[in-house]
Amino acid sequence: MTLKLLVLLLDLAGTFVFALSGATAAVRRRLDLFGVLVLAFVAANSGGILRDVLIGAVPPASIRDWRYLGVSVLAGLVTFRWAPSIERLKNPVRLFDAAGLAMFAVVGANKALEHGLEPPMAALLGMLSGIGGGIVRDVLLREVPLVLRAELYAVAALAGALVVVTGEWLAWPTTATMCGGALLCFGLRMAAIRRGWRLPVAPAGDAPRDDRPDARPRDPEA
Amino acid sequence: MTLKLLVLLLDLAGTFVFALSGATAAVRRRLDLFGVLVLAFVAANSGGILRDVLIGAVPPASIRDWRYLGVSVLAGLVTFRWAPSIERLKNPVRLFDAAGLAMFAVVGANKALEHGLEPPMAALLGMLSGIGGGIVRDVLLREVPLVLRAELYAVAALAGALVVVTGEWLAWPTTATMCGGALLCFGLRMAAIRRGWRLPVAPAGDAPRDDRPDARPRDPEA
Amino acid sequence: MTLKLLVLLLDLAGTFVFALSGATAAVRRRLDLFGVLVLAFVAANSGGILRDVLIGAVPPASIRDWRYLGVSVLAGLVTFRWAPSIERLKNPVRLFDAAGLAMFAVVGANKALEHGLEPPMAALLGMLSGIGGGIVRDVLLREVPLVLRAELYAVAALAGALVVVTGEWLAWPTTATMCGGALLCFGLRMAAIRRGWRLPVAPAGDAPRDDRPDARPRDPEA
Repeated sequence: MTLKLLVLLLDLAGTFVFALSGATAAVRRRLDLFGVLVLAFVAANSGGILRDVLIGAVPPASIRDWRYLGVSVLAGLVTFRWAPSIERLKNPVRLFDAAGLAMFAVVGANKALEHGLEPPMAALLGMLSGIGGGIVRDVLLREVPLVLRAELYAVAALAGALVVVTGEWLAWPTTATMCGGALLCFGLRMAAIRRGWRLPVAPAGDAPRDDRPDARPRDPEA
Repeated sequence: MTLKLLVLLLDLAGTFVFALSGATAAVRRRLDLFGVLVLAFVAANSGGILRDVLIGAVPPASIRDWRYLGVSVLAGLVTFRWAPSIERLKNPVRLFDAAGLAMFAVVGANKALEHGLEPPMAALLGMLSGIGGGIVRDVLLREVPLVLRAELYAVAALAGALVVVTGEWLAWPTTATMCGGALLCFGLRMAAIRRGWRLPVAPAGDAPRDDRPDARPRDPEA
Repeated sequence: MTLKLLVLLLDLAGTFVFALSGATAAVRRRLDLFGVLVLAFVAANSGGILRDVLIGAVPPASIRDWRYLGVSVLAGLVTFRWAPSIERLKNPVRLFDAAGLAMFAVVGANKALEHGLEPPMAALLGMLSGIGGGIVRDVLLREVPLVLRAELYAVAALAGALVVVTGEWLAWPTTATMCGGALLCFGLRMAAIRRGWRLPVAPAGDAPRDDRPDARPRDPEA
């Protein structure tokens, strides 16, 4: 009972933070109020919607339950009104974003396992739950998705999801592996931000380098 | 009987006009004949396809029924052959586009209700039916979706869908609320075009303004 | 037995080659290792995933069966390590890409027919299986999808799928029509590359030409 409530609260908190990131990006691109609300909803819920469509759990939770919409709209309105202040809250937003990523990854992996997917694919779908919102947000705003380039963002989500999947395979208690996976994801992501850990880039060949100014990596929470 | 036929005719008319908008955008970007046909189909049918996938009504109507494909291809061929003339028909196209938006929004909301969605989410899915095609069209052509920026475009669709949902909740006759919703959406959109109504944009903070030339709002039917 | 194994091998070979194309594009855009792997998977599997979601065959084959993931990751790693050499293998890659396109188109059309779609829509879904991966790859990398512009790329896929659908309608043996469709698609695509066959572009009207440098058609396998 209490555990379920805790998971719901954490899930809605993750939704709120991810919605902030979408709304902030929309305000920067000078979208109007409605565009800001759409980007808030999309950034917070696309990952879970993609996962649910792929595992056949339709209508997706974010479409069935109006609370996800409510939380996303609230985050959008807050951002619309106080965007400059939120930009200044960079560090707390990063912290919450890492927490949301961790939550979404382990909950998503667990849900995919429950729908009977093979373990490696369940881990991938957990990762997709965590990073899908950021990908759709960036595609709508015409950016190369930042989660494909930032410091260990998707990798942290994958690591957390893998813990859940491995734990299930070894028949460990679900609550423990979900907490462990979330902590690992959160820790990896925060450490990667602090120390600038990045994955390697392939050696430059004779291919033309793409150095248009707007193709450079930027900060994912920016 | 007659009502059902009328709805089908209006639906196909809406499909035709939305397909014109996709094909026109493709011709402008110098896509070849096939690209023009794809954009015509996508602009006219993606909204309904997204809605149907999300509510679990697969295969989606536009995939099951070849008439939507036929109408879309026809619109694409017409545009390909007479693009300059169609560009000049801006005002009638806008009128039909607003009519298509109204149709798609109320029909979409009604279908989502029939599939058992909660009222607020059914209204959202009605809106998505109306604006989804334009969003996918713009993403494929590498634009920030114009429906997120144009004069009360998505808001008009949402208003129409809300009428349907509220009417259902108050147990009003469905035909009446669908007509009322469609009229409200159509009227709002036409008034917004005529008077230049727009939603507010957030106050500029210290965030960098995005003013690359191709990021400026343009005309959605253009 | 042997036929089924052959189809599986060809399918995995097509997946491998399509994954190479996604990974190569990602390396060129300076994505990190993880981004390269994601693009490899997406380019190879999105077409089939879109088809399966649209016909209601969820979870999609590429999500249910880990071998597609394995092959995609392998192709991504190979590209990451030896990108410059792979760029030089342009001709063999084109050959395999055309073979993959042919395979995906006929297998996709066949699967759509098995799920009870109308013949013209089954042909379209076969085409989507072949070209969907390239479309998603280009959207993620912020390009106008090249398959909408290259030499008879989508048209070749459509032709192959139409053979399968027509054969089914005339009750011809499935194996024969699938082989015939695949050969037609492969032949058309190779001939189009060799002779530079292209579809016509609409006559330029008074619409502004889009000639930003990165909007020019480029080579799809590049």
